[in-house]
Amino acid sequence: MNSEPHIMRAFDRDLETVQAMLMKMGSLVEDAIVCAAEALEARDNDLAGRVVRGDAVIDALEEQVNLECARIIALRSPTATDLRTVLTVMKIAAYLERCGDYAKNLAKRSTVLNQTAPIGDSAASVLRMAKLVQQLIRDALDAYIKRDATLATEVRQRDTEVDQMYNALFREFLTHMMEDPRNITACMHLHFIAKNIERVGDHATGIAEQVIYLVTGTLPAEQRPKGDTTAYDRGA
Amino acid sequence: MNSEPHIMRAFDRDLETVQAMLMKMGSLVEDAIVCAAEALEARDNDLAGRVVRGDAVIDALEEQVNLECARIIALRSPTATDLRTVLTVMKIAAYLERCGDYAKNLAKRSTVLNQTAPIGDSAASVLRMAKLVQQLIRDALDAYIKRDATLATEVRQRDTEVDQMYNALFREFLTHMMEDPRNITACMHLHFIAKNIERVGDHATGIAEQVIYLVTGTLPAEQRPKGDTTAYDRGA
Repeated sequence: MNSEPHIMRAFDRDLETVQAMLMKMGSLVEDAIVCAAEALEARDNDLAGRVVRGDAVIDALEEQVNLECARIIALRSPTATDLRTVLTVMKIAAYLERCGDYAKNLAKRSTVLNQTAPIGDSAASVLRMAKLVQQLIRDALDAYIKRDATLATEVRQRDTEVDQMYNALFREFLTHMMEDPRNITACMHLHFIAKNIERVGDHATGIAEQVIYLVTGTLPAEQRPKGDTTAYDRGA
Repeated sequence: MNSEPHIMRAFDRDLETVQAMLMKMGSLVEDAIVCAAEALEARDNDLAGRVVRGDAVIDALEEQVNLECARIIALRSPTATDLRTVLTVMKIAAYLERCGDYAKNLAKRSTVLNQTAPIGDSAASVLRMAKLVQQLIRDALDAYIKRDATLATEVRQRDTEVDQMYNALFREFLTHMMEDPRNITACMHLHFIAKNIERVGDHATGIAEQVIYLVTGTLPAEQRPKGDTTAYDRGA
C-alpha cells in the first residue's frame, strides 16, 4: 500500500471528467439497444419512441466528449500514453455514437413491424442478440476503464457468438420469405435489425481493439474473428 | 499578391504530409467503390478479388494517418484551428476506412451474385449509385482541402439523391422477391449492397459536416437531410 498522499495531476482530473461522460454515453447506448429490442418484442411503440428521442442525448454527449478532449489536448499538451488515451476516448465515443444510431434505427423499424404479424419467435431471438451485444459493450468499456487487455481480447472472441446468432437468423428469415411472400417486407426489416445488432457487436470489438492498442501499444496482429459468413453464402 | 518569401511553419509541413496520405486514401476508396460495382455489373470475379485485397492498403493508410496525427499533436502542440484541423483529419480518415470496408463487402457479395441469374438491370443501377457516391466523396475531400463550406453544404444536399436511388431499389427488390421466391437470396444480397452504398453516401455527408465544422466552428444546425425512408415504410 502506498501511504504517500496522492497528488492528482491536472491531466488526470480532466481525464476523469471526460471518462465519466464516456461511461454515461455507454450506459445510455446499452439501454437504448436493449430497450429498442424490447419495444419490438413487446410491440411497445411508446418505448420505441423514447429510444428514438433519446438518441439526441447520446449525440450531444459525443459532441461534448470531443470538445472536452480537444480542450485537454490544447491545455495540457499530453504526449505518449496520455495523448494516446485522449485519442482513444474520442474513438470510443465515435463507436458509441454509431451504436446509438443503430438502436434508434432498430426502434424505428420496430414501430413498422408492430403493424404486421410476428415472424415466428424472431423478436425473442433479436432481444437475446441485443442483450448479448449490450454485455459486450459493457465489458469493452470495463476493459477500457481497467486497462484490461485480457478482457478486451475476450470481448473480441465473444463477438463471434453474435455473428453466429446473426447467421442463424439470416437463414431463418430466408426460409420465412420463401414460405410465404407476404412475410417478405417484415423479414427485410427484421434482417436489417439483426444486421444492425451484429454491427453493434463489431463496434464493441472495435472498442476492445482500441483498448488493446492503448494497453499494449500494438493492434491485435491476427485477423479480427469474422463470423458473418452471409456475404459468401448463397443461402437456403 | 504577397511578395514576401513564404516561410512554411513546421506544423504546416507536417499537415501537408498527413493530408497527402488522406488524399491517397480517398482516391483508393473512390476507386474501390466503383470497381466493386463494376465487378458486379461485369460479373468480373478477378476485379472483385482485387478490391477485396486492396482494402488492407486503405486500412494501413488509416493507421499511418492516426500515428502521424498523434505525432503532430505531441510534437507541435497545436491549439485552436490547428488542433481542430488535425482532429478533423483523423475523423475523415475513420470515415474513409469504413467506406473501404463497404466497398470490400460489396466486392465479396458480387462474387456470390455472379453465380446466380441477374435481377433485372439492378447491377446497372448499383453502378450508377456507386458513381454518384464516388463523386460525393471526391467533392467532400475537395471541400476539405479548399476549406470550402459551401461545397461541403452542397455535398450534404446531394446525398439525398443517393437516398432516393436506394429507396427506389429497395422497392424494386421487394417486387422481384414477391414475383419469384427464387429471387429472394440474390435480392437480399443486392439490397445489402444498395444499403452499403447508401451508407457510403452518409459518410460523405459526415466528412462534409466535419469540413463545415472546421471552417465555420459550428456543426450544421438543421437536421441532416435523411432520405432513407424505408425504416418507416411497409413497402409494396
